[in-house]
Amino acid sequence: MKAVDRIKIRGFHVDAFRHVNHARYVEFFEDGRWAYAELNQHVGDLFTRLQKKGIVHMIVNINIDYKKGAVVGDTLRIETDLMKAGSKSYVMSQKAFIGETDTPAAEAEMTNVFVDRKAEKVIEINEEIMSGWPELAGLLREG
Amino acid sequence: MKAVDRIKIRGFHVDAFRHVNHARYVEFFEDGRWAYAELNQHVGDLFTRLQKKGIVHMIVNINIDYKKGAVVGDTLRIETDLMKAGSKSYVMSQKAFIGETDTPAAEAEMTNVFVDRKAEKVIEINEEIMSGWPELAGLLREG
Amino acid sequence: MKAVDRIKIRGFHVDAFRHVNHARYVEFFEDGRWAYAELNQHVGDLFTRLQKKGIVHMIVNINIDYKKGAVVGDTLRIETDLMKAGSKSYVMSQKAFIGETDTPAAEAEMTNVFVDRKAEKVIEINEEIMSGWPELAGLLREG
Amino acid sequence: MKAVDRIKIRGFHVDAFRHVNHARYVEFFEDGRWAYAELNQHVGDLFTRLQKKGIVHMIVNINIDYKKGAVVGDTLRIETDLMKAGSKSYVMSQKAFIGETDTPAAEAEMTNVFVDRKAEKVIEINEEIMSGWPELAGLLREG
Repeated sequence: MKAVDRIKIRGFHVDAFRHVNHARYVEFFEDGRWAYAELNQHVGDLFTRLQKKGIVHMIVNINIDYKKGAVVGDTLRIETDLMKAGSKSYVMSQKAFIGETDTPAAEAEMTNVFVDRKAEKVIEINEEIMSGWPELAGLLREG
Repeated sequence: MKAVDRIKIRGFHVDAFRHVNHARYVEFFEDGRWAYAELNQHVGDLFTRLQKKGIVHMIVNINIDYKKGAVVGDTLRIETDLMKAGSKSYVMSQKAFIGETDTPAAEAEMTNVFVDRKAEKVIEINEEIMSGWPELAGLLREG
Repeated sequence: MKAVDRIKIRGFHVDAFRHVNHARYVEFFEDGRWAYAELNQHVGDLFTRLQKKGIVHMIVNINIDYKKGAVVGDTLRIETDLMKAGSKSYVMSQKAFIGETDTPAAEAEMTNVFVDRKAEKVIEINEEIMSGWPELAGLLREG
Repeated sequence: MKAVDRIKIRGFHVDAFRHVNHARYVEFFEDGRWAYAELNQHVGDLFTRLQKKGIVHMIVNINIDYKKGAVVGDTLRIETDLMKAGSKSYVMSQKAFIGETDTPAAEAEMTNVFVDRKAEKVIEINEEIMSGWPELAGLLREG
């Protein structure tokens, strides 16, 4: 299920152009992905189980379109959802809207993989992952 | 000319995974683009002249591949250069190498446009820009 | 009135020691002071009126005691209130508690002054400020 | 020996007031303390030896006076030195000067203790610490 969180823009979020600095969106979106794993508790639980086996999810690519500068006093509404999946990766779609409007300040696709930390290798999206994250399995079957 | 700067990784740069946090690279790369405009003084001068006319360069897309986690004690070598150009945008290529090796921690393409702040519109890359930034003009002619 | 806001600790907030990094508290406390000016609308309004005259409030000293490391998954409860006042400065007291407990992660006193930006001089806390911020006037009368 | 490092101020360092944001100084000063432990290699070595025994140095108080706003294009010169010592703590003095002038942007005193991580207790500054860090021993003897 899509996660939604809101961040109130303060003086320390903006830069010399008085717009929210580019790097801050990366933090806001990271916050959004944690919010997604909390809202979709089965995903959070899956991450915990995998981590105990030394398997962690990692970002391998971030791709952000900056659309409109947000300013002090704006509230950004961060929407995060699973978007697509391949045999070895999945993509989270994340959007930062200004207030309660449909005007995006930024839109991102974040590509993740699962890594076996001991082997230092990306693993395939396997049965355990698919049974723990049905939405991901669904996208893979469709894909 | 390619700009090179170096950043020593400290405790505050890394996150819960003890790797440099994703958002920090966006800052390191911003630092690299400022370094590029300083090294290539004609570009810095062009930006200053344009700004006086209300024309600023703005990032519209960042696309970063994360390759290898950098840790406390590493020095990241940030290399920044102009990579390609279209009629309304240009792309800076930026790489963060670990120490003096050829092992990239992250590689990025940063797409920029010039915006007329009053009109709030992206402008074409015009004669003034091309004569002030010959490397950009060269890529446009080739392109 | 005391302002209370809450921040969920994420991976990007912590550093090599897996505790919330010192600099982040400075941001959390800045967020808390903005929250105070929103909750106490007469204070926010005063700041706006003063700013139109070129008078801004500025931090001149921050003094933070770090008590206990907060970790990923904790929620910090930031409490912010006016604490004391002198003829030319006032102090905000700020505490970051872990969750809903009385265990402080950090406690701060933030000293502020009002600056006339044109004259580049600190001004006295005058009638306008005192009538716009009765709590501050009360502390001054007591003091 | 006093450590000196320099940081070039970029757009992402400043906030809505176009001055370097308060939290950034905490990072710059953290950078300065790492630089101190590198320059004074015997101190860095001591920290490493202690850490192997589960003893880490930790900041318990930061006290920063903000003197003058630094802006984009400034270079801050961060000077860091050991300042004083007690039986259970030591204080690093840190100053951020604007460029090569004697004008401080900010001045800080950072109080540190040594903590036994297993016992979760502050330890006394003992023989091992004093023999590994003669400057600290000197201040204690004077003290």
